[in-house]
Amino acid sequence: MSATPARIISVDTHDIRFPTSRELDGSDAMNPDPDYSAAYVVLRTDAGDGLEGHGFTFTIGRGNDVQVAAIGALRPHLLGRSVDEVCADPGSLSRDLIGDSQLRWLGPEKGVMHMAIGAVVNAVWDLAAKRAGQPLWRLLAHADPEWLVSQVDFRYIADALTPEDALALLRGGRAGLAGREADLLERGYPGYTTSPGWLGYSDEKLTRLAKEAVADGFTQIKLKVGADLADDVRRLRTARAAVGDRVRIAIDANQRWNIGEGIAWVRALAEFDPYWIEEPTSPDDILGHAAVREGVAPVRVATGEHVQNRIVFKQLLQAGAVDVLQIDAARVGGVNENLAILLLAARFGVPVCPHAGGVGLCELVQHLSMFDYLALSGTTEDRVIEYVDHLHEHFTEPVVIRDGHYTAPLAPGFSAAMHPQSLAEYRYPDGAFWAADLAGRP
Amino acid sequence: MSATPARIISVDTHDIRFPTSRELDGSDAMNPDPDYSAAYVVLRTDAGDGLEGHGFTFTIGRGNDVQVAAIGALRPHLLGRSVDEVCADPGSLSRDLIGDSQLRWLGPEKGVMHMAIGAVVNAVWDLAAKRAGQPLWRLLAHADPEWLVSQVDFRYIADALTPEDALALLRGGRAGLAGREADLLERGYPGYTTSPGWLGYSDEKLTRLAKEAVADGFTQIKLKVGADLADDVRRLRTARAAVGDRVRIAIDANQRWNIGEGIAWVRALAEFDPYWIEEPTSPDDILGHAAVREGVAPVRVATGEHVQNRIVFKQLLQAGAVDVLQIDAARVGGVNENLAILLLAARFGVPVCPHAGGVGLCELVQHLSMFDYLALSGTTEDRVIEYVDHLHEHFTEPVVIRDGHYTAPLAPGFSAAMHPQSLAEYRYPDGAFWAADLAGRP
Repeated sequence: MSATPARIISVDTHDIRFPTSRELDGSDAMNPDPDYSAAYVVLRTDAGDGLEGHGFTFTIGRGNDVQVAAIGALRPHLLGRSVDEVCADPGSLSRDLIGDSQLRWLGPEKGVMHMAIGAVVNAVWDLAAKRAGQPLWRLLAHADPEWLVSQVDFRYIADALTPEDALALLRGGRAGLAGREADLLERGYPGYTTSPGWLGYSDEKLTRLAKEAVADGFTQIKLKVGADLADDVRRLRTARAAVGDRVRIAIDANQRWNIGEGIAWVRALAEFDPYWIEEPTSPDDILGHAAVREGVAPVRVATGEHVQNRIVFKQLLQAGAVDVLQIDAARVGGVNENLAILLLAARFGVPVCPHAGGVGLCELVQHLSMFDYLALSGTTEDRVIEYVDHLHEHFTEPVVIRDGHYTAPLAPGFSAAMHPQSLAEYRYPDGAFWAADLAGRP
Repeated sequence: MSATPARIISVDTHDIRFPTSRELDGSDAMNPDPDYSAAYVVLRTDAGDGLEGHGFTFTIGRGNDVQVAAIGALRPHLLGRSVDEVCADPGSLSRDLIGDSQLRWLGPEKGVMHMAIGAVVNAVWDLAAKRAGQPLWRLLAHADPEWLVSQVDFRYIADALTPEDALALLRGGRAGLAGREADLLERGYPGYTTSPGWLGYSDEKLTRLAKEAVADGFTQIKLKVGADLADDVRRLRTARAAVGDRVRIAIDANQRWNIGEGIAWVRALAEFDPYWIEEPTSPDDILGHAAVREGVAPVRVATGEHVQNRIVFKQLLQAGAVDVLQIDAARVGGVNENLAILLLAARFGVPVCPHAGGVGLCELVQHLSMFDYLALSGTTEDRVIEYVDHLHEHFTEPVVIRDGHYTAPLAPGFSAAMHPQSLAEYRYPDGAFWAADLAGRP
């Protein structure tokens, strides 16, 4: 232990890619061949306690190197920073990163640079929770409401949510927390599964996986749609036959359509009672989502995994454009911005059903939903976290699904850490897997 | 000359930074110390004609290396591509780049990755215009309307603009083209100047530069606002006294405000008759701009330099959120997407007044406004291109301003090329200027 206050002393980045495209896992109408990847960052300190902060951006292959470069561009904001201060107030760091007047030009608050900020901010929260000896969901759920409000950047959202609004929501959310925490620890948080529904799967595989999902306790599954209408009709009929009438089937077009096209397509699938249509069109099209929602009711409209920041989420809510809001733990500017988004959703009374899957998104986002349940929304009704059974084995604290529910993680931190041997094997292009793979190509 | 068709054989990138922060040029309420920079790309071919395609993304310093990495990530789409094919149909390349299913995850169509696409697509148009022996504005203005429509990606905008709409607009725009072209060659395209109005300048410098602007033939100037209201009142009074009642004074908050704050601030400046308020709030806030427009009328609302793509521009128009639409030549996906945006503006009858300045943005965007005048809007009424007198000396074909007008450039291409010695001197961190500068720092 040094006599001076502990500092952040290194910001190590890793370009990690998994060759998922070879098995058609994760294939959908817009993403036919993803190689699930992570631009991964590790913060180390000189505190002498051995604790590190881990975070990452999820990508689907090419460009992961650009994302790693963007994380590297944030290094000067981190090195030398006091560990105590940054862990006591990640919001200040978040504001410094978002407010860097030169880097801001590359967004602002969107795309590669903003996702890099999210990775770093999430790594700080991972470190802060480890130092507090708490899983992040519990740290957040028991945090002082005024402190939580101080962690939110209200710039550009104050017309929809003021600090006073946020404080009232968080204070109100505390009632009954102990009972909900007991329930969470016993039952977990409900999930739904996308594993049966990838476009690349045969009808037989779809049927088998859908039946397995129901047997495993899931009450909702999801199917990818949008490539071919006749195929979608057949696949949705197949899925409905497999799961029966009581299990919800969400459908997901991954931004495939223009507005009129999307409305017509969803109406053509309405006989199979889809629960929501996800990403019917561009994530940037707020007014378009509102038009789709009007056109496909009573089918619900969901979006968010590609929504760039709280400002667009705010407008989706203001415009009445969504029935279901899908946060992603690693696209916006990290935990702080997701606090803002959860508060906006609570303010507008719209349920949050996170996007997950990919690499480690389940591990991260469960903490945010569990906080939402315990200390904000107060309910899990009509709320489910996406679950995909991919790549969890690479994490030191993988999610545990029991009877269709996410079990509350108990290890301190944000569940973000990958095994060192996974980092070593899948590092691109020089890890063991890729070195061998690339050497074998013509 | 080789017997096989000519191909693109290299994609060279350069991290070019100018130390503009040292003189407070370009300072505004959000960008106090920009180092104007370019992530610069040169396409070379084996055609044997010596022609190259030049393009760039403008940034303001830190992160220019990330932008260079993003351009580099596009290299596999370019190398080996037929020069004839890509120049005959830049739209196909544009769609390939935007549609790369893995890179798309990093946007989609926004931020670092999308700006990189813009740089590359613009470089192809530069090459195409050089091969045609035409300045780009003339190539576009005389192009077949059906071919121009084929260059536009209607995905996500077809609810506001169909290919049929676009064709009708372009066909209608042809009437009287010869007369307008003669007028353009004689008088040029009107500009306005931001040079007097940077926040870092003294009142004396503001007065002197404002008077010079009027003497130079400009009928509009622009002032940066938003840091301090009392200062803004004084500066706007100073500027109005300097230029008289007939010269338009636009004001620009560079995204500084929340909605209510912006409305109140602009109302407090209304006595000085500002012509437009530019970027009152986040470029992502379509509904917010609509609220500001309603709150500050008759002051006009302008935005666009940070608007990420045609989908957000579409909604700004659909929501009646702007009086003036400000395209930028190097933020969206290049000429093809700007064609879509110009067509949307024409469809909604909103005048386009481009953002320029920075590094080379004047050089590029003049071509788009001149095309707009000749073959689409048919008028320059209430239309002006921003002009800032910075860094033009680094370009081989710098803009020429005469009596407050942009003179039509006659050299073939997109006016994008910098002098080789500028590239060599300001390359970061190893060019002559930076090597000496960095060596001299403590």
